[in-house]
Amino acid sequence: MKHSQTLIPTLKEVPTDAEIASHKLLVRAGYVRQTASGVYSFLPLGNKVLKKVEQIVREEMELAGAVEMLMPALQPADLWKETGRWYNFGPELMRLHDRHDREFVLGATHEEVITSIIRDEVKSYKKLPLTLYQIQTKYRDEKRPRFGLLRGREFVMKDAYSFHDTDESLDDVYDKMYLAYSNIFKRCGLNFRAVIADSGAMGGKDTHEFMVLSEIGEDTIAYSDTSDFAANIEMAPVNVEYTRNTEQEQERTIVDTPSAKTMEEVSNFLNVSIDKGIKSLLFKIDEDKFALVLARGDHEINDIKLKNCLGATHVELASEEEAKALLGADIGSLGPVNVKEIPIIADNAITSIVNGYCGANETGKHYINVNPNKDFTVDKYEDLRFIKEGDPSPDGKGTIQFAKGIEVGHVFKLGKRYAEKLGAQYLNEQGKQEVMTMGCYGIGVSRTVAAIVEQFHDEKGIIWPKSVSPYDIHLVTVNTKDEEQLHLSESIYKELQQNHFDVLFDDRKERAGVKFADSDLIGLPIRITVGKRASEGYVECKVREDGEQFDLHVSEIVPSIKKFFSEN
Amino acid sequence: MKHSQTLIPTLKEVPTDAEIASHKLLVRAGYVRQTASGVYSFLPLGNKVLKKVEQIVREEMELAGAVEMLMPALQPADLWKETGRWYNFGPELMRLHDRHDREFVLGATHEEVITSIIRDEVKSYKKLPLTLYQIQTKYRDEKRPRFGLLRGREFVMKDAYSFHDTDESLDDVYDKMYLAYSNIFKRCGLNFRAVIADSGAMGGKDTHEFMVLSEIGEDTIAYSDTSDFAANIEMAPVNVEYTRNTEQEQERTIVDTPSAKTMEEVSNFLNVSIDKGIKSLLFKIDEDKFALVLARGDHEINDIKLKNCLGATHVELASEEEAKALLGADIGSLGPVNVKEIPIIADNAITSIVNGYCGANETGKHYINVNPNKDFTVDKYEDLRFIKEGDPSPDGKGTIQFAKGIEVGHVFKLGKRYAEKLGAQYLNEQGKQEVMTMGCYGIGVSRTVAAIVEQFHDEKGIIWPKSVSPYDIHLVTVNTKDEEQLHLSESIYKELQQNHFDVLFDDRKERAGVKFADSDLIGLPIRITVGKRASEGYVECKVREDGEQFDLHVSEIVPSIKKFFSEN
Repeated sequence: MKHSQTLIPTLKEVPTDAEIASHKLLVRAGYVRQTASGVYSFLPLGNKVLKKVEQIVREEMELAGAVEMLMPALQPADLWKETGRWYNFGPELMRLHDRHDREFVLGATHEEVITSIIRDEVKSYKKLPLTLYQIQTKYRDEKRPRFGLLRGREFVMKDAYSFHDTDESLDDVYDKMYLAYSNIFKRCGLNFRAVIADSGAMGGKDTHEFMVLSEIGEDTIAYSDTSDFAANIEMAPVNVEYTRNTEQEQERTIVDTPSAKTMEEVSNFLNVSIDKGIKSLLFKIDEDKFALVLARGDHEINDIKLKNCLGATHVELASEEEAKALLGADIGSLGPVNVKEIPIIADNAITSIVNGYCGANETGKHYINVNPNKDFTVDKYEDLRFIKEGDPSPDGKGTIQFAKGIEVGHVFKLGKRYAEKLGAQYLNEQGKQEVMTMGCYGIGVSRTVAAIVEQFHDEKGIIWPKSVSPYDIHLVTVNTKDEEQLHLSESIYKELQQNHFDVLFDDRKERAGVKFADSDLIGLPIRITVGKRASEGYVECKVREDGEQFDLHVSEIVPSIKKFFSEN
Repeated sequence: MKHSQTLIPTLKEVPTDAEIASHKLLVRAGYVRQTASGVYSFLPLGNKVLKKVEQIVREEMELAGAVEMLMPALQPADLWKETGRWYNFGPELMRLHDRHDREFVLGATHEEVITSIIRDEVKSYKKLPLTLYQIQTKYRDEKRPRFGLLRGREFVMKDAYSFHDTDESLDDVYDKMYLAYSNIFKRCGLNFRAVIADSGAMGGKDTHEFMVLSEIGEDTIAYSDTSDFAANIEMAPVNVEYTRNTEQEQERTIVDTPSAKTMEEVSNFLNVSIDKGIKSLLFKIDEDKFALVLARGDHEINDIKLKNCLGATHVELASEEEAKALLGADIGSLGPVNVKEIPIIADNAITSIVNGYCGANETGKHYINVNPNKDFTVDKYEDLRFIKEGDPSPDGKGTIQFAKGIEVGHVFKLGKRYAEKLGAQYLNEQGKQEVMTMGCYGIGVSRTVAAIVEQFHDEKGIIWPKSVSPYDIHLVTVNTKDEEQLHLSESIYKELQQNHFDVLFDDRKERAGVKFADSDLIGLPIRITVGKRASEGYVECKVREDGEQFDLHVSEIVPSIKKFFSEN
């Protein structure tokens, strides 16, 4: 493609509303333009990258046995009422009326539409399992659209849905999709983790998020420094063997701790290490019950684990008044000693404490030399805390580190929720009606484009991985008025095309400096510059990634470029 | 693709709401399902055809020098207010509000968005011409969505827009797009005509519609039986050399014609050939002027030609009262003799009349033996009538025939309309601000899929042209319980795939009759049936188009199929 024939409006200025690298660079390098808040036009370069990512997704979906289809964005509200999402999706769901005043939504996802199709068309176990996907435009009316393509209101997604008669069949397809997702993000060149995620609200079972590691990510990932283990921090189990030190158990003593309330304050005041603190939190469970929950002073209770441990649907910290009424002290002075009224639940780490300290259930007083089992009894020990950096990885391999991640994909065992609501049933081998089991699998395709830029850029611009670069090669003529340079450029352009390379040929009458800056900004893997040495038949090659530069004779260009693109 | 792995829900019943073949067959053969009135889901087969047509469009657009991009469906109302279309597009434009109550439209076309981008990004003649296209989903809230994919409310279009500094540049790109469109519809196998169309309302210049010939089409095309000439009937010029016969001119006589009002009635009553009739129509021009317009008794006046001839914006037949007041007679008795008050405009065919008849401007009376120039004077002769079947083609080659057409494409010289409204200006070579000139070029991609089915089907089902068939080959195993048949089928399936054929393999445990009926319904170009002769290594081949059937040895399959697909 000749630069003069396409539209690549590069900018020197950083757009004022852009906060993150991908947003800044995709606008500056002429890949996208905002049409409305959170709504973007993909200019030719942006569209090419989008299509390349789509193609990778398509190939891996097909390999995984998923079949492509295409559902509409315009969906009748009735379907969303059947599943209840019309009422509880909230203002993110875009709604409209047609000319006959019938209600529609602009699809944020397609569970309703696909499940209604399958309900009508699949009646027998013989047609199961079935996995269908589409690459299609989605709508979500974000309250604060920002970060360019990362959080838009109209965006391209790949969404897949699988239908099954058994859980084993779902497990099998889930594993295939998991593998396909790993392949997709690998092929996009991304540094990512498949992270164990919370399936809570959607009522399903297993679920993994695919997170691209990035400082601007909004989720925290706990991952192993040596193995594949990774989980959303909320979902990471703690698998530590706590050992008691050999210290002699002392007699419990009550001490005044005026104005020291937090674990740190008490630790400093008493001059006792914080990992000897017994943090005692009064939780209100499902509106009417209470429990005293213990964690080590240097640990934090993870609500999700606590909920799971108690089989509760809701937990929250009790109020100052409730603490006073129930245990007779301020929240800063609670502790497990002599508590009989309510159950005591403790994180496993409490077992490691010898001669610890805790609140005395008297405002302004703490006990020191407190020992579990001797000074109080715990009803249940469990893993209740958030994992920490430095903890051993739960899979026993390596040490936990934290990273921030951008969610680009999500695989989910939905179960029967939608099939039940929409009546998607089949006849099993015994001729009995059964409700189907479902999985759903999403990839934010346009978001993936942005995530790639977040991982692959420098101060000069984007550095595309070969697999998704809009073009393979940037061919730049230094001086288009120089007949020799122009002629040589044209012949290299043709030769590279004949060898199936996709070339962006900067044939503009611009200063060389402008062209080089644009080239770095646009970020194709390799630049071939036709300049002064054109008369000798020499060009300059520059690798965008590492800046390596070298002269090449015309005859060497195709073999060298082929070699470059065959390397990883 | 194995049938068991995908979703092809064929139906025996014709959907009750389907009136035309493409609608019936695309539903019955499992290509699409309606999600809401005028809104369809493309099931796997439908999606494959859609993607094939898209790919043909893409290839020809690239060859024509157009560059792909992707604009959003969600468009801010402000842009549509700038061009005025917010106010005058009517209820077909789908509108909605976001959570902050800002107005949006769902794009019916993208002139506003693309022109606003070009306005902001292209400032110099050096960057012109520029042709951009997208394949994207459009919305139009049809009052009566019907005919399946032919008239939907959500549909896939290819829309292209070109920007120019000169009319010559626009002409050049227009010609390229015209050629690309011809190639696209040819490659889709369609019998179509590029038809001269009316550019009236949109204020542009040249415009052609690409019409697929079909009885269910809503437009009438006048085309030459030997040349390329084709025009919307409203736009076809009449290019006939009228000759007067050698009959002696007689004296004009007034006769009673009680209760004979139409040209036919008078012709019968007087026993004079209708082509001697001088049809005299009183037209009201632009609200305040009148003209008497003459056509031969067997011809019809074409309003568009009349408007152009008079330079008028609106013409309509005068009322009975106006006729009476102006010419003193009922509409059935009007004529040109002795009319002085208003201009007389005549179609060229009037010159051929010798001893004709016409109204006498006295109710119930006509003149016979009327001769133009002798009995009345015509202010202006022009081509004012609709072309008729049997007329010579305006290009001098062949004879005009009529056909009905489905519009699948439209190329249009838009001119400066949108660029002016949105302020898309550039600096010309002299450094002066000028308004850009535009072209726009649309193809109804999903509509093209339906148009193909209209042209290619029989009573058994669809008959896909090779270029757009969802799969190349339908491989059918007669009895999947027969190990030999199944084994042979599997090995043919693999071999065909290795030879890059796209195969649909009917591996279902269904009766052979069901499979054959489904195969005819689905309509792939060729069917390979593995049945009784599997043990001898023989299969049956059936060509869907002509029903030709023959046995093939396994070793001959690939060469035969290759030959079949290399033929036109």
